[in-house]
Amino acid sequence: MKNIISIITVLLIAFSASAQMSLREQDSMNIRKMYDMSLMNGKSYAWLDHLSNKIGGRLSGSVNAARAVEYTKAELEQLGLDKVWLQPVMVPKWTRGAKEYAYVQPSEGPTQVVNITALGGSVATPETGLRAKVIEVQGLKDLERYGKEQIEGKIVFYNRPMQADLIHTFEAYGGCVDQRYAGAMEAAKYGAAGVIVRSMSHKIDDNPHTGSMTYGDLPNEQRIPAAAISTQDAEYLSSILKLDPEMKFYYKMNCRNYEDVESHNVIGEITGSEFPDEIIVVGGHLDSWDLGDGAHDDGAGVVQSMEVLRLFKESGIRPKRTLRVVLFMNEENGLRGGKKYAEVVKQKNENHIFALESDAGGFTPRGFSFDASPSQFKKIKSWESLFKPYLIHYFELGGAGADISPLANGNIVLAGLRPDSQRYFDYHHAATDTFEMVNKRELELGAATMASLIYLVDTYGFESIDTTKEILK
Amino acid sequence: MKNIISIITVLLIAFSASAQMSLREQDSMNIRKMYDMSLMNGKSYAWLDHLSNKIGGRLSGSVNAARAVEYTKAELEQLGLDKVWLQPVMVPKWTRGAKEYAYVQPSEGPTQVVNITALGGSVATPETGLRAKVIEVQGLKDLERYGKEQIEGKIVFYNRPMQADLIHTFEAYGGCVDQRYAGAMEAAKYGAAGVIVRSMSHKIDDNPHTGSMTYGDLPNEQRIPAAAISTQDAEYLSSILKLDPEMKFYYKMNCRNYEDVESHNVIGEITGSEFPDEIIVVGGHLDSWDLGDGAHDDGAGVVQSMEVLRLFKESGIRPKRTLRVVLFMNEENGLRGGKKYAEVVKQKNENHIFALESDAGGFTPRGFSFDASPSQFKKIKSWESLFKPYLIHYFELGGAGADISPLANGNIVLAGLRPDSQRYFDYHHAATDTFEMVNKRELELGAATMASLIYLVDTYGFESIDTTKEILK
Repeated sequence: MKNIISIITVLLIAFSASAQMSLREQDSMNIRKMYDMSLMNGKSYAWLDHLSNKIGGRLSGSVNAARAVEYTKAELEQLGLDKVWLQPVMVPKWTRGAKEYAYVQPSEGPTQVVNITALGGSVATPETGLRAKVIEVQGLKDLERYGKEQIEGKIVFYNRPMQADLIHTFEAYGGCVDQRYAGAMEAAKYGAAGVIVRSMSHKIDDNPHTGSMTYGDLPNEQRIPAAAISTQDAEYLSSILKLDPEMKFYYKMNCRNYEDVESHNVIGEITGSEFPDEIIVVGGHLDSWDLGDGAHDDGAGVVQSMEVLRLFKESGIRPKRTLRVVLFMNEENGLRGGKKYAEVVKQKNENHIFALESDAGGFTPRGFSFDASPSQFKKIKSWESLFKPYLIHYFELGGAGADISPLANGNIVLAGLRPDSQRYFDYHHAATDTFEMVNKRELELGAATMASLIYLVDTYGFESIDTTKEILK
Repeated sequence: MKNIISIITVLLIAFSASAQMSLREQDSMNIRKMYDMSLMNGKSYAWLDHLSNKIGGRLSGSVNAARAVEYTKAELEQLGLDKVWLQPVMVPKWTRGAKEYAYVQPSEGPTQVVNITALGGSVATPETGLRAKVIEVQGLKDLERYGKEQIEGKIVFYNRPMQADLIHTFEAYGGCVDQRYAGAMEAAKYGAAGVIVRSMSHKIDDNPHTGSMTYGDLPNEQRIPAAAISTQDAEYLSSILKLDPEMKFYYKMNCRNYEDVESHNVIGEITGSEFPDEIIVVGGHLDSWDLGDGAHDDGAGVVQSMEVLRLFKESGIRPKRTLRVVLFMNEENGLRGGKKYAEVVKQKNENHIFALESDAGGFTPRGFSFDASPSQFKKIKSWESLFKPYLIHYFELGGAGADISPLANGNIVLAGLRPDSQRYFDYHHAATDTFEMVNKRELELGAATMASLIYLVDTYGFESIDTTKEILK
């Protein structure tokens, strides 16, 4: 008897091992298919070419943003998805106007033109520009140290650089971006006349990098103009200021805030064959800053997300769950698209089990970061080895994507594609964020990596969801 | 008694665990130091700027190659190494002469200029150029299929592209490069008049990519001119040929082979403090092709290798074993420097325990490939987790570097830095291999990753060597 049990046990283990093996093999094959198709016959690069070169920068509320909505909707419709629609959303509208102009004016000798760009949402300077002395600080904390006495009437120059020794460049960005985001609001409280912020980039060059900023609840009359200066000119300004503390800085900006206008999230879906009510989202944001083409930020994420659904259609892998591509509007200066999407999900009581965002550039994919429970994460980690042939090795908790963050509800798993980040801030929010800076293979590998993860999520779902289902049965 | 033994055992385990812990912590700290110094105060990027922009392409036997020898020797001397010297080596000398010229000549209608480049080592065309019909093939095997009848007097056009679905681009290169290397030699045997090879690149653009080729033992009068054509023009030529099989191709090349000339490997070392006779080599190759600056191939490897020794000097970490930087001459078209170095090692009976080469571009480092015994490799794998904070994850057997390969003796461990390979063949051997295409952080991360591995090898050595030592004691 004991022997028979042993034999049965061995057989059961062998059977289950072989069944598991063949599932594993099938996963492996289907993932291979995603990579092959993306690399051999992908559409992401051609889409990005159009978005970058035929449309260009897509600031919320601009004509280009509307053209991008129209274009991506039409392209999704051609994929033969089950549904494609636009989701209306009100977005802020801010325009740059005529290009900014700035110079350093030493106490003696000729002025020197420097490269600046208005921060998104900034008020303009007076018609005749703003001219004032400069005080250099290394961050928000320095304001208190110098106090109103030394700040009032001056231009505050935030010059803390991104830390070069941090391997994850997003950490270096996170450690500096408070200067850009809150610098004007805080300096205004000390009576500053304006704000100049060192561009958020490791690279020392002539390109200023724009980005969002806030005045918080400051009354209109206290709002001061805020610009980013190129890293090269930040070094220059800092040097001149040491030699000549009485020097003045002049700048003229022509930007303007308008009333909110209507725009759209673009959404397409393949309805799930077995669990249509379990929704899996993949997305990026359709809007971009206006200086470049927004090719890396976030044209790449947009076309990769579209490609994920195309790869499912073309490969003939019919998803069990509903796959939805969402191209969010207004990530850069308001996150209105992400908030609206989550609001509608809540209204409709839709069950989203997973959302993946690509918004870190179209560089070689290294893996993903996740917001997930320990058991959900354990399941994800069990898939890690399937990605090894593709050199995908980064599966870590912590952070996903801005647009999908409003979906967080303690149950949904959120994920962000993590491409190699070393070059990202060379281009981020600058005129250099163009199509030419995106490598076709790197972009396509990202799309395939996303499709592979989505495939696994679709195939296996997540424990918490399954448990509920089983209880309901 | 039993209790006392238990207590002693526990204490011993605790002590050894804590000792191990502190070793691990020290390794971790020293590695951190290498990365911090390379990223914050590195010299690799400035060196590469000089090598690329002040010197430029460094073809073996050229004036620029000699200038590079002089420059890197002088820079190494400034680092305060224990020894710096030049190792003479005879190298081939081939010159391109005036730029190549080529066009497609349809049976009717106007000619169309196309972009070609002579392959390194090719003979020139006749003074008046070469004009002939074209036969397109997908590889060397096709020659036999078509036979002398269809090949004789024609230009053989090798057009098998690099496979896009291979994740490691070097595999795709390896799968195609026989067309470039042996294409002329083989086609000549079938009476071909000349050879045109599709450039070894995934990217579809106008830049032809040169590279080495051989005629083997073919007598001089049978040697036919061989050129690479840009991928874009390869597609064009292939299309025209389908429409108009009678079309002719014309090209004119002015290249020339000379007698060998003397050149040098550049060598510098820090003599080991404990085991000076155990030598660790780190290197890249100083020569490059002439079309671009040779910034990725292999200026990056050169400056990273120099940086490794600089990092040791600056950090105050005195190596126990002898660290030697070797800047090899003539990897591209002869490997004479690598062969000469190994020859002298053998003559002097020097004991080399480890050699690391960087010759795959200055891109984000992903890890290393090794030629090592199972026990040596096991030791290396035990270091893997120390690299995790730097996103270095690739530690695999198989292949190291061309220049260090002649050192193989069944005992030495050979290693190659493995940077991200997706963009490498966009630039490789083309006019686009320039300084601007190298990202500072990526280059510096590579140097730090190399220094960290060298640090671990220096600290722990390798079993086989240690065992011998212990037996000798």
